[in-house]
Amino acid sequence: MDPDVAFAVWSGERARRVESVLERLLPPGAESAEKLHDAMRHAVLGGGKRVRALLAYAGGELTAADPGSVDAAAAAVELIHAYSLVHDDLPCMDDDVLRRGNPTCHVVFGEATALLAGDALQSLAFEVLATGMREPGGQIALLARASGASGMAGGQAIDLASAGRRIALSELERMHALKTGALIRAAVRLGAACGRPMTAGENDALDRYASAIGLGFQIVDDVLDVEGTAQSLGKTAGKDAVQRKPTYVSLSGLAAARERIESLRVEARAALSPFGSLARRLLEIADWAAQRKH
Amino acid sequence: MDPDVAFAVWSGERARRVESVLERLLPPGAESAEKLHDAMRHAVLGGGKRVRALLAYAGGELTAADPGSVDAAAAAVELIHAYSLVHDDLPCMDDDVLRRGNPTCHVVFGEATALLAGDALQSLAFEVLATGMREPGGQIALLARASGASGMAGGQAIDLASAGRRIALSELERMHALKTGALIRAAVRLGAACGRPMTAGENDALDRYASAIGLGFQIVDDVLDVEGTAQSLGKTAGKDAVQRKPTYVSLSGLAAARERIESLRVEARAALSPFGSLARRLLEIADWAAQRKH
Repeated sequence: MDPDVAFAVWSGERARRVESVLERLLPPGAESAEKLHDAMRHAVLGGGKRVRALLAYAGGELTAADPGSVDAAAAAVELIHAYSLVHDDLPCMDDDVLRRGNPTCHVVFGEATALLAGDALQSLAFEVLATGMREPGGQIALLARASGASGMAGGQAIDLASAGRRIALSELERMHALKTGALIRAAVRLGAACGRPMTAGENDALDRYASAIGLGFQIVDDVLDVEGTAQSLGKTAGKDAVQRKPTYVSLSGLAAARERIESLRVEARAALSPFGSLARRLLEIADWAAQRKH
Repeated sequence: MDPDVAFAVWSGERARRVESVLERLLPPGAESAEKLHDAMRHAVLGGGKRVRALLAYAGGELTAADPGSVDAAAAAVELIHAYSLVHDDLPCMDDDVLRRGNPTCHVVFGEATALLAGDALQSLAFEVLATGMREPGGQIALLARASGASGMAGGQAIDLASAGRRIALSELERMHALKTGALIRAAVRLGAACGRPMTAGENDALDRYASAIGLGFQIVDDVLDVEGTAQSLGKTAGKDAVQRKPTYVSLSGLAAARERIESLRVEARAALSPFGSLARRLLEIADWAAQRKH
């Protein structure tokens, strides 16, 4: 089978898999806090690229984990990601109305319910890990650190503070390393933790891969925000410029951004060399992430 | 020593203890996401009755847990409580400007930072449990369920939906059982889990105690909201009436509310009979909670 086709088949299968896991984990729409439950389901189900879940499953292949044993980790990182999007889209943050081709959570359910839905999704992510992994202590600490003040939330705070301000490229990279990178690193690590034990050196190699992927992913987003349309992206295009947010493109130009995407792809692939053919899916994700059009 | 004085000494010592644990766990104010860290510290430190921490320590006394081994549980429930207050006070929720005698988090730091601070405090609560308890899986699942859609966040959603609507007293009690009760039950259970193993019957007795305490605590809040002043409460008084929120007092009157507080105090005490003198602090908390003036 053509390698690109084989990857499309694998990633499609895994994306459907995590979708059905999430469907099962989310509260049904029929209890008394119904509107909250509907808001949670709206925020999580029905699409998204499921990059973090794919990274968890691909991390699991590295350590010969059974996909079933990776489900909890894959679902947990998607729940954290979904909660962060709901809160990011709120009027007091990015004030965005379109996400994954649909109206954002607060547009449909109101701000207060969207706020609570995000909060409850974060709780659910930790519940899923606590009940779905053997010896979850270390993994929960990893995900909590990746989500909190020294990870994703910390990165968003730096992002807020940088709007309308000229910052250095190194500062921008540090912000992205927290805002999106921390959860992407956690996704790969959590997936890999579901199989045979890893050495410290292997964990470091995996972190280098995930850091490169995470930054590359963000720069591709910056490029697509300039080049794309709302229709192709499923979210508002051109909003970085409107919000006067510094991006890789605004700081260094399109050509340099494209070069950096390619060098990060090469860096990510190189970090995987100790793993040989077990890293196949992670390699494919690195290539796909650099070339994606939405 | 007079029993009331002895309880005041114990609770003061434990409140200071959790304060210093929280102080140590929170990020310092000097890193690059400084404003976020300051907002987190503002939300958590410097007061509050620390009821949930006291319940965790008192739960620990029931199973002969060393106070040091209860610190993580006590801090985690206070962190969850603090995050919920920050989000509750936001303009899209209760829109409140005064809390614990200070301006609320979003008044001082802005809405976006307050939102992120709440998010990061929730992550920190799970990190603290994951790193501070032996075999934390079951305890994290307990706290996550108490915090999420079938606990605190679910109760807040019901609260939102009930504003301006006439609801039955039984519905109001169900809302409080989730909104404040779930975390109070979790606090006692997490503390007790730090010592010798409990039987299922003992856990049930503890849940009955905590449910009675939790509801009683809320009804006292309703009474104080009518009778108190902002100065005595450290938060805005009379806001339930302004927001047309149903309360125990508005549904059944002051006299019936006071009777219910007393019957819940008796119920809470009765639930503890299997534990004998080990339940001393929990008994004292039941008495104190029913009689408090702020």
